[in-house]
Amino acid sequence: MTRIDRVMKAMEEQGITQMLVSDPVSVFYMTGIHVEPGERFYGMLLKENGDHVLFVNHLFMIPKEVSFRKVWYSDTDPVMDYVKEYVDASRILGVDKDLKARFLLPLMEGRKTEDFVNASLAVDLTRGIKDKEEQEKMRTASRINDQAMEKLRELVKEGTTEKEIADQLLGIYQELGAEDFSFSPIVSFGANAADPHHMPDDTVLRSGDVVLFDVGCIREGYCSDMTRTFCYGQATDKNREIYDLVHRANEAAIAKIKPGIMLCELDRTARDVIAKAGYGENFNHRLGHFIGLSEHEFGDVSSANKRTAEPGMIFSIEPGIYLPGETGVRIEDLVLVTEDGAEVLNHYPKTLQIIEEK
Amino acid sequence: MTRIDRVMKAMEEQGITQMLVSDPVSVFYMTGIHVEPGERFYGMLLKENGDHVLFVNHLFMIPKEVSFRKVWYSDTDPVMDYVKEYVDASRILGVDKDLKARFLLPLMEGRKTEDFVNASLAVDLTRGIKDKEEQEKMRTASRINDQAMEKLRELVKEGTTEKEIADQLLGIYQELGAEDFSFSPIVSFGANAADPHHMPDDTVLRSGDVVLFDVGCIREGYCSDMTRTFCYGQATDKNREIYDLVHRANEAAIAKIKPGIMLCELDRTARDVIAKAGYGENFNHRLGHFIGLSEHEFGDVSSANKRTAEPGMIFSIEPGIYLPGETGVRIEDLVLVTEDGAEVLNHYPKTLQIIEEK
Repeated sequence: MTRIDRVMKAMEEQGITQMLVSDPVSVFYMTGIHVEPGERFYGMLLKENGDHVLFVNHLFMIPKEVSFRKVWYSDTDPVMDYVKEYVDASRILGVDKDLKARFLLPLMEGRKTEDFVNASLAVDLTRGIKDKEEQEKMRTASRINDQAMEKLRELVKEGTTEKEIADQLLGIYQELGAEDFSFSPIVSFGANAADPHHMPDDTVLRSGDVVLFDVGCIREGYCSDMTRTFCYGQATDKNREIYDLVHRANEAAIAKIKPGIMLCELDRTARDVIAKAGYGENFNHRLGHFIGLSEHEFGDVSSANKRTAEPGMIFSIEPGIYLPGETGVRIEDLVLVTEDGAEVLNHYPKTLQIIEEK
Repeated sequence: MTRIDRVMKAMEEQGITQMLVSDPVSVFYMTGIHVEPGERFYGMLLKENGDHVLFVNHLFMIPKEVSFRKVWYSDTDPVMDYVKEYVDASRILGVDKDLKARFLLPLMEGRKTEDFVNASLAVDLTRGIKDKEEQEKMRTASRINDQAMEKLRELVKEGTTEKEIADQLLGIYQELGAEDFSFSPIVSFGANAADPHHMPDDTVLRSGDVVLFDVGCIREGYCSDMTRTFCYGQATDKNREIYDLVHRANEAAIAKIKPGIMLCELDRTARDVIAKAGYGENFNHRLGHFIGLSEHEFGDVSSANKRTAEPGMIFSIEPGIYLPGETGVRIEDLVLVTEDGAEVLNHYPKTLQIIEEK
C-alpha cells in the first residue's frame, strides 16, 4: 500500500471523504515533492475518488510528472477560491491540524462550523508508523548523532562557553554526513540546564557544572534527537542523585516498551521513579514525543496519551529533573517499537561521565 | 502610545473587542516576552477593557513581573478550554492569520463561523510601521548585511561550490555582530539562479556563471535581506542585458517611493521596465515583501496591494529575471519609507561587477 493509500484508508475510518493537507512535510511524505512554501498557501486536497489536487504557487518548482492534478496560482490570485472550487460543499471537509486561520476561515465562509473537522489524525497517525525504509534512515540519523555527541564531549574544556561549542556542531554534523540540524542545539552549563529550552549563550564553563547537550541532525530528511548530561571536573552529591534518578527513569520506561502498552503508562513509569524520590514537581514536561521527517511529529508520550505502542513507532524517552537556579539533568534516547519490544536507536553511553578538567 | 495601545486602537477601528494573537513574534512585539512555543499553544488574548491574558505552557520561562494576567497550563491540560473561559462568547472573536486549525476549531465549537474573523491586520499593519527604535535596528542589520556581501564576494573563486560559500556565511555574520541568519541563505551559480528559491548545493563555479547571493541576518531581533548578482570571469551579452533591466527596474521602483503612493504602483513600475523588454513572464514573483522582526512580515509590494506607502514602512524591492535552464538575476534592497521619499537601507553597489577569475 502506498503512503497515500494508507492515509486514504485512515480518512475512510474517520468517515472523511475529502481532506486538505497543508503541512508541507505531510505532502512530502505522501508525494515525495519537497516545497517550503513559507507564508504562501501550499496544500493537497485528498479526494475519496482518488482525484487529488495539489495547489502550488508558480514560484515553486515541482516535478512535471505527477499522477494527480496540479493547480498553479500566482501571488496575486485568490488561491482559496480555487481550493473552494474543488471542495464538495455538501460534505464535511477534513483539514490538518496546522492549517492557518487565514486559509481556513475563507473556506468556511457561508458554511457551518460543524462542516469542518480537524482530521489530522488520518495523516499524522499514518506518519507515526515508520516503514522499513524510514526506520533505516532514522537509525542512520541517530548513529550520526551518537558520533556527534562524542565530538561535543571532546570540546568541553576550561573557559569555553555554551555558544562556542554550539557553533561547532553544524560543521561536526556535516562532516559526519548529515545535512543540517533537526532543531537548534541546546548546550547548557550549570544552572542553565534547569531550563529545558535554554539557548546557548556566553555562559562560561565552571568546575562542578553539569554540561547538557540536547542535539539532533537531519540525514536524508529524517531527524535524530538525543540528550546527554555530563559533569565537568566533579559531580556534586545533588547532581549524582538526580542523574541516577533520571537514568533509572529512562531505563525503566524503555524496559516497558512493547506493542500494546499505553504510551501514558511509559510516562507514568518514568515519572514514578522521579516522583518517589520527591522530585515529581521538577520533571515538568511529558516523557517524549514522536519524531521522523519532523523533529516533533504528532504523538507524545504523556500522561494524557492513552494510545498504545505499535510496531514502527519511533519516539523519544527523555525524563529530566530541573532545579531552577541550581542545575538540571535530562537523558534522552530515540526508540523504535518492534514486534516484541523496543530497539533503542541511540548507543551513546548513559552512565554518568565526569569530564576531567583541562 | 505603547505598541499594545496601537494594536488596540487598530482593533477598535475594525470593530473588534477581543482578539487572540498566536504569532509568538507578535506577542514579543507587544510584550517584549520571547517564547518559541513550537507545537504548543501560546497566545495572548487582547480584551477591550485592557484585561489581557497570556496563555503559557509551564515549560517556558517568562519574566515574573508583567502587567497582564498569565494563565499557565501543562502539556496534559485542555488549554483551549482555558482560552474559551476568557473569551466573551456573545461577541465576535478576532484571531490572527496564523492561528492553527487545531486551536481555532475547538474555539469555534458550538458557535457560528461568522463569529470568528481574521483580524490579523490590527497587529500586522501596526507592526508594518516601524518606530524610531526599530528603524535604527533595521539600519544596523542591513549595514552588517552590506559588509557580509563584500566578504561573500571575496570567497568567489575557481572550483568553489555554492555550499562551500554558504557554509561560511554564519561565521561571517557572527563576526560582524549578528546573531543568526534571518533565512537560509541562497547562493546560486549559473542556471541555478533561475530558481528564485534555489538551495546551495555542490554545483561548482564555472567561468561565465552568474553568482547570486540572497542573504540576510538577524541583529537584536531585526532582519536584513539583500540580493546581489555578480558575473564570474566574464559577462555574456544575455547576462549583461538582463542585469541592466533588473537594475533599472530596481532603481525605477525605488525612485517612486514616497508616502501616499500605492504599493501596486511600485510593482507596476518595476514590472513595466522588464515587460517592455519582453521578459515579463520571467519576472514571476511580486516586487517585494515587508520585513522586521520576521524576515517575511505581513504586507507585500505586489500588483494586488492597493495600500499606500506610509512613513515607517520597511519592505524589499527585489525585481528579477529568470531564464530556466540558463541564468537568472535579482537585485534586492530594503527601503524605509520616509516623510518625503525613501531611505535605502542597503549600500552595497548595484552596478554590474565582474569578478576576476582566480
